[in-house]
This record gives sequence, structure tokens and C-alpha cells, in this order.
Amino acid sequence: MLKIVATPDALRRLSDRWRREGRTIGFVPTMGALHEGHASLIRRAAEECGRVVVSIFVNPKQFGPKEDFARYPRTFAADKKLCAKAGAHAIYFPSAQAMYPPGFSTTVSVSGVTAPLEGARRPGHFDGVATVVAKLLIAARPDRAYFGEKDFQQLAVVRRLAADLDLGCAIVGCRIVRERDGLAMSSRNRYLSPSERAAAPLIHRALALGPGKARAAMRKIPGAKLDYVELVDADTFRKPTPKTKRRRLLAAVRLGATRLIDNTDISC
Amino acid sequence: MLKIVATPDALRRLSDRWRREGRTIGFVPTMGALHEGHASLIRRAAEECGRVVVSIFVNPKQFGPKEDFARYPRTFAADKKLCAKAGAHAIYFPSAQAMYPPGFSTTVSVSGVTAPLEGARRPGHFDGVATVVAKLLIAARPDRAYFGEKDFQQLAVVRRLAADLDLGCAIVGCRIVRERDGLAMSSRNRYLSPSERAAAPLIHRALALGPGKARAAMRKIPGAKLDYVELVDADTFRKPTPKTKRRRLLAAVRLGATRLIDNTDISC
Repeated sequence: MLKIVATPDALRRLSDRWRREGRTIGFVPTMGALHEGHASLIRRAAEECGRVVVSIFVNPKQFGPKEDFARYPRTFAADKKLCAKAGAHAIYFPSAQAMYPPGFSTTVSVSGVTAPLEGARRPGHFDGVATVVAKLLIAARPDRAYFGEKDFQQLAVVRRLAADLDLGCAIVGCRIVRERDGLAMSSRNRYLSPSERAAAPLIHRALALGPGKARAAMRKIPGAKLDYVELVDADTFRKPTPKTKRRRLLAAVRLGATRLIDNTDISC
Repeated sequence: MLKIVATPDALRRLSDRWRREGRTIGFVPTMGALHEGHASLIRRAAEECGRVVVSIFVNPKQFGPKEDFARYPRTFAADKKLCAKAGAHAIYFPSAQAMYPPGFSTTVSVSGVTAPLEGARRPGHFDGVATVVAKLLIAARPDRAYFGEKDFQQLAVVRRLAADLDLGCAIVGCRIVRERDGLAMSSRNRYLSPSERAAAPLIHRALALGPGKARAAMRKIPGAKLDYVELVDADTFRKPTPKTKRRRLLAAVRLGATRLIDNTDISC
């Protein structure tokens, strides 16, 4: 039986009870509109933890004023089915009012890894992410929390804040799940028109060409407007240096009104 | 036996063990140099909770570059005795390195109540307070945390962040403990020269005259430089309005190189 909890207090009580019973707790934070990428996170959490909570919250604080908060897809009935099938035990489904009641005035900020790429182009976005993830992990107190590598810079932000705030929660990054044609799964893919959808897999294909050729290939995608394609040190998000151990090539591309991101590991 | 723990992980393990044993946990955050004011917080925590942790950490992040971080008194041997006598079960005594390891880059900020008074005069101070208190309460996971009303604005900041971050911890404000002559107890009182010490109780006496007369009385304190004396709504820290339920008169005064703060409740 999938439990639905709607307030931070109820989530904390559930988590405390499971901990008293000796269960390990896995946590999968989402904004709903769940797809196979989310399902893979939930299945992994269910393999590794005795109890799994999926949070579904379209977090207003991480959307800019001109972004797609209002039209972001809300598909709770389908999400519930996917959660149950993938092995979740509870859904945390708070209202904006429960998360940010009147008078709310606290912000969690991470510097450094948030400076370039998404952070430079979406002012306030990572403050919104850091604040909501801190709240979720504090209330849920999981042993492990699962994040997809599609939002690779977000994953770095979450690793940083979990370490810095002593959350005592392992942050598990999981590989990008792709459609058969290579398009990274995203709740925003459903915004795409048929012609945009046809062009979208070219983002991944361009990244696969490597840092030298990706930019030119991106510019040739029909109807696409390149936001950035950049190679960074995967830990610091600065320019790679000779000391860099892991390099990551990241891109953001607009197809019509839809902004898509993707990234790939670049072996040194 | 008083336990000493030195890292966030060790504190979390201790707290988890106590919780499994069914103990309630009280937490008293301090910067050490403990006095009777702190002792009263620890005694109250010991009355209300099965286990009590006192943290001792002179938090570099809440001191400005020209403030007294370097000379702030460190008196660990005496602090340990006071903690044991007052009924504490553990001291959390982390190094700056354990709290802020290389790469640390997260800040917790509270807006609103931090804007006037101390927040306006000590840039970054309340960010430092909010960040360290969040870390302490996240790692210790107490049921109740005890703060003195001497730092009345800090108490408002902590109430706000505990509610906003879903910490699930009751914040207990405790009355100011004073010397016989009325001076609010403070670790900084030991900085005072004999003549400054003789003048210091006049701060409390001036506040007791009420908002109409306090300012003039403050200005007459020998050797004192008035930083502020202000009446605010005790919940919002804005100017009191006809709707204000609790009003608070707060002052900051310099006596030589020492900055003292005090405050008093003003019945409507």
C-alpha cells in the first residue's frame, strides 16, 4: 500500500517510525510528470533500501519569472501508478502552502559549482533547488537519496549541500536514461512538437562527437538555438586543468519554446 | 560521564543511539566561555529532556573581520565542569576544520527579521549564525533547543529557520540571567575594565525606563557609545504597529572596545 503524506511533520513521523523499525530509507525527489528515468531511480532505491519515499513537488522557487512553472505537467494519477509499480512505499506530495507557509524567509545557497552554465543563465534557480532539497532531506532523513545525472550540475549542488549541512545522507547519482533514439528522458520532452521531437536526439549525438566537434554539430540542429555547450571539470565545474580527473561536456539547447539540457562523460 | 564528540558524524551517531533508546534530546548551542546564563539553559534542558548535548564552537563565520574572533575567550576546562554540574550528558566540541572543511560552500540566510539592528550593523553575522545553527540542529536532531533571550534577534532568526527548514525541533527561548546589579550575563563581560564594568549595569537600568526615556539615559552612561536603542515588534522586528502583540526594546552599546547588547520586554 502506497502511503501519501502531505506535510513535513507527517513525513518526519513516517521516517522516524521506519527508522525505529530498523529500516533504511531511500528518497527520490521529483517534480512529478514521472517517466522511465524516474522509475529507474525508484527501482534502484527499492533494491538498496528497505523503504522508499518519492517526493512530488513542482517547486515554484526554482523557476524564473519567465519560465514554465505554470505549464509544467502535473500528472499525479499516472505518477502514483508508476511509483507503486517501481517499488515505492510512500509519496510525499506537499502543497506549496505546506512547503512555504506565509512568513517563510530562509534560503539555502551554494556557491562555486553554481556559478557557470545553468547558474549563470537561470538566476535564483539553484537557490530554489538547494532550499527545497535541504527541506526535503531534513524532513525525510533518508540514508540515501537518488538523483539523475541528466541534471548534472544540480547533482553537484546537492552533493555539496548534503556534505556541508551534515545531512548524513549519501547522494547517489544515476546514469541518464534515454529514449531509443538517444534523447535524454525529461518531463519537458512532452512540450515538443513532432518536428522538434525529431530534431531533439541530435543534441545527444552532437555531444557524443566530443568537445572539439559538438558545438558545430549543435548549430546544425534544425530549429535549435544553442544556449551553451561547455566542457568542465565534473567536480568543480571550472575549466578542466591538467589535474582534472573527470571531465563533463554539458549543453543546453532551445527547440521552439522548450529548453532541453543533456551532458556526457568525456574520458580523459 | 560526560561524552565529548568532535565531528558531525559522531554527533549524529550519538543522537541516533539515544533516539533508538527512546530518549528525548535537548540541545544547548554555545560559543563556550560558559557562565550562569548558559548553566540555566543546560539545567532547563536537563529538566525537560532525557539527554542533553551542549555544543561549544566559536563560529568564525559569525564574526566580522574587525570583530573579536581571535580574542574571544576559550575556557574549555572550566566549560566542561560547568556542563557536568548543570546536567549535560555530552559536549559537541568540533574544530573549525570539522565544521568547515576545504571546499565548504553553503550558506543559510534568513531575510526579514535579520534586516534591522544587529543585521544592519554586522554584515554577514546572521548568515553565519543561521548556517552554523542549521548544521548543529541537523546533526544533533534534538527535540528541543535552548537559546537565551539576551541575543533576542538571534532567537527570532533561529525560530524562523527551524520552522522554514522543517527541522522538527522546538526552539525554547529562556529569560536573560543577570548579575545582581542587573548586567546581562555575557562571555564578553570579562573584557570590561573595572570602570567599564561599573558603568555596564546602567544599560539595563536605562532600558527599564522604557522607550521614551531609554535613549537619553543611555547617552549619559560614562564612557559609553550608543550603537542603537530601538523599540520593535518582537515577532517581525519591524516598527510596532497598533496590531503588535509583543514589543521589545533592544540596545547595543560600546564600552571601550567591548560591544554589549541587552533588551527588555515592553508590556503594551
